[in-house]
Amino acid sequence: MEFRISDRMAAMKPSVIREILKQMSDPTLISFAGGNPAADSFPKEAIARFSAELLAEDPVGMLQYSVSEGVPAVREAMKQFVNRRFHVVRESDEALVVSGGQQVIDFAAKCLVNEGDTVAVEDPAFLGAYNTLRSYGAKLVGVPMEDDGVDLTVLEHVLKTQAPRLFYCIPNFQNPTGKTMSYEKRVGVYELCAKYNVPILEDDPYGELRISGEDVPPIKSLDQKGIVIYAASFSKILSPAMRLACCVCDKGIAQRMVVAKQCCDVHTTVWSQRVCARVLTETDIDAHIEALRDIYRRKANRMLNALDTLCPAIEHTVPEGGMFVWATLPVHIDMPAFVAKCLEQKVAVIPGNVFFVNESVPCQSVRMNYSSPTVSDIDKGVAIMADVLRSM
Amino acid sequence: MEFRISDRMAAMKPSVIREILKQMSDPTLISFAGGNPAADSFPKEAIARFSAELLAEDPVGMLQYSVSEGVPAVREAMKQFVNRRFHVVRESDEALVVSGGQQVIDFAAKCLVNEGDTVAVEDPAFLGAYNTLRSYGAKLVGVPMEDDGVDLTVLEHVLKTQAPRLFYCIPNFQNPTGKTMSYEKRVGVYELCAKYNVPILEDDPYGELRISGEDVPPIKSLDQKGIVIYAASFSKILSPAMRLACCVCDKGIAQRMVVAKQCCDVHTTVWSQRVCARVLTETDIDAHIEALRDIYRRKANRMLNALDTLCPAIEHTVPEGGMFVWATLPVHIDMPAFVAKCLEQKVAVIPGNVFFVNESVPCQSVRMNYSSPTVSDIDKGVAIMADVLRSM
Repeated sequence: MEFRISDRMAAMKPSVIREILKQMSDPTLISFAGGNPAADSFPKEAIARFSAELLAEDPVGMLQYSVSEGVPAVREAMKQFVNRRFHVVRESDEALVVSGGQQVIDFAAKCLVNEGDTVAVEDPAFLGAYNTLRSYGAKLVGVPMEDDGVDLTVLEHVLKTQAPRLFYCIPNFQNPTGKTMSYEKRVGVYELCAKYNVPILEDDPYGELRISGEDVPPIKSLDQKGIVIYAASFSKILSPAMRLACCVCDKGIAQRMVVAKQCCDVHTTVWSQRVCARVLTETDIDAHIEALRDIYRRKANRMLNALDTLCPAIEHTVPEGGMFVWATLPVHIDMPAFVAKCLEQKVAVIPGNVFFVNESVPCQSVRMNYSSPTVSDIDKGVAIMADVLRSM
Repeated sequence: MEFRISDRMAAMKPSVIREILKQMSDPTLISFAGGNPAADSFPKEAIARFSAELLAEDPVGMLQYSVSEGVPAVREAMKQFVNRRFHVVRESDEALVVSGGQQVIDFAAKCLVNEGDTVAVEDPAFLGAYNTLRSYGAKLVGVPMEDDGVDLTVLEHVLKTQAPRLFYCIPNFQNPTGKTMSYEKRVGVYELCAKYNVPILEDDPYGELRISGEDVPPIKSLDQKGIVIYAASFSKILSPAMRLACCVCDKGIAQRMVVAKQCCDVHTTVWSQRVCARVLTETDIDAHIEALRDIYRRKANRMLNALDTLCPAIEHTVPEGGMFVWATLPVHIDMPAFVAKCLEQKVAVIPGNVFFVNESVPCQSVRMNYSSPTVSDIDKGVAIMADVLRSM
């Protein structure tokens, strides 16, 4: 029988990137295409130790049903963690445990967006966010990125004329551009969204991974009116396989998010929650994060230096953290052909157009990931890119 | 700011049962209200051992991103497990790993149900399923339960006149009634749904927990046309906190379910997946399940005997497995008042009306859970119910 697919899902395609990545099982491939944390970034001894301790100390508590909001002690530990540099969690907020940052986007869309409604998004931005928003029937309106974040003039125009249900952004070390929204722009985004009564979905998976410059306060820390839904992921600082994030938002909307959680997967895996809480409370988490920053600083510098040295014709962003460099090819180079030739030579990058709301608009950029490859593969891969570029 | 809530979520309430359960932190309360596995039912030594082994042997594999379909070896282990008594997974099917049985309902609703569409459901049935279906804007049409499963005459009328997008059922030891759909009715349900081109969502969280009688083939095992989406949960045989289920369905719809998974939480926690696969492949899982059946058989018999002895005026189902007894009070007893008086006397049962599509219709039944309480609490609790009944 042919299933009749719902309207909201009929137009959806599997994630281009995940499909590309699945085809990349070739171990000789140098991949700048993924978004995985470095294999040596996981606090694996701590996780193994706390896992063993918890399963021995409280096996029933680790294995029995729990509450949809998240284990109370875990929520408290996450709240302390999220609040340690800036005042993110207000008195009138809840901190909920969810199964990864993607799920915050899912629940925000489900709770706030009717089918056919407009959602404003940074453009380009995280493709997974676009897909989730679209899977609830959202019509996306892109707001172009400038070097210091979204274009506020366009944002105001969109807020005023399209009455979006939500504005989605990644202020820190954005995926795919690596750009960071300036403090002034954060204030501007907040004031505009507050003025037009549009909730902000602030996605912050990379915020802890700063490798240069100074921390910029999250938009949530400016939030007097309770309009910001903030997602802090543990995928990039602990482990993506644990599927863990903390969603911080006003109690009113948090109640709805909890209903969405009940309806979706009841609660997040207790093992992930409690192991995370122990890592946060019983290890020097800031020392661990400092070590990650060292790893990523070294890799980022390696990639940026290689690009500058070997591919001077490629323009690129200089990310202050995160995992990505946004590299723009000279105008005479056909970007899709370049990506295809690199892949033939066993170097994978993601064509930049897939990160735009309208992916059919011509694009000269590619996304390069520096967190997963080894430093020697970074050198080799960029050298191959230089060869390909010369050959075109 | 007051958030504008989407139409689909604006009408939703937090799960009545989960809210009741949250208020039941009083340790002196005897609860027949929950649906938790027995605390001594978890294979906790095996889980702890395999967890330690896996985190030592392959820490990066345990902590790094994985694929949305589920870890291939885990899918294969689940497929073997699901197929060991009946041919559930056909050649043209996929077996996907998801984060609990609830998520199968979520994805099926998301992929198949437009807002305003009708979904046919067993009535009464699992409240969590109703809520998830409603959270995608489904209009539920209940099909009454007979002793051996749904009323086929009403089902055909609903299929013919309302063109539902889905029929939801729990053929084994149904929640809340404890009833099992007969083989003849399974064939009847399958043939009717095939005739009217209506997909079947077969929810089977309790199938392994048979305490008497003979296994009845799942509807999925009759499925020549690929119309059944089958959900096998590991919550009741391993651990609900692991959040694990296997979704079996035709490859065509499975592709859509994978897109829904990508959009929701990317993939299921790898720790849960791989620990489960080891339990399935490296322990005598059938011996473990036999031990669970012994636990639940003893508890069920204790509850049924206590009811027969102490509350002969209460009619009840005699479940062949699962976790629930559906107990119907004499006509002169006001059910909500009975539930309230029991709670005053520190015995909790769930008022039966909450499991109906229309929960405002008068109902004389309550749902009693026998899996969580101790045998001595079962005796004490039923004795208190008898006192309350006499007092009314």
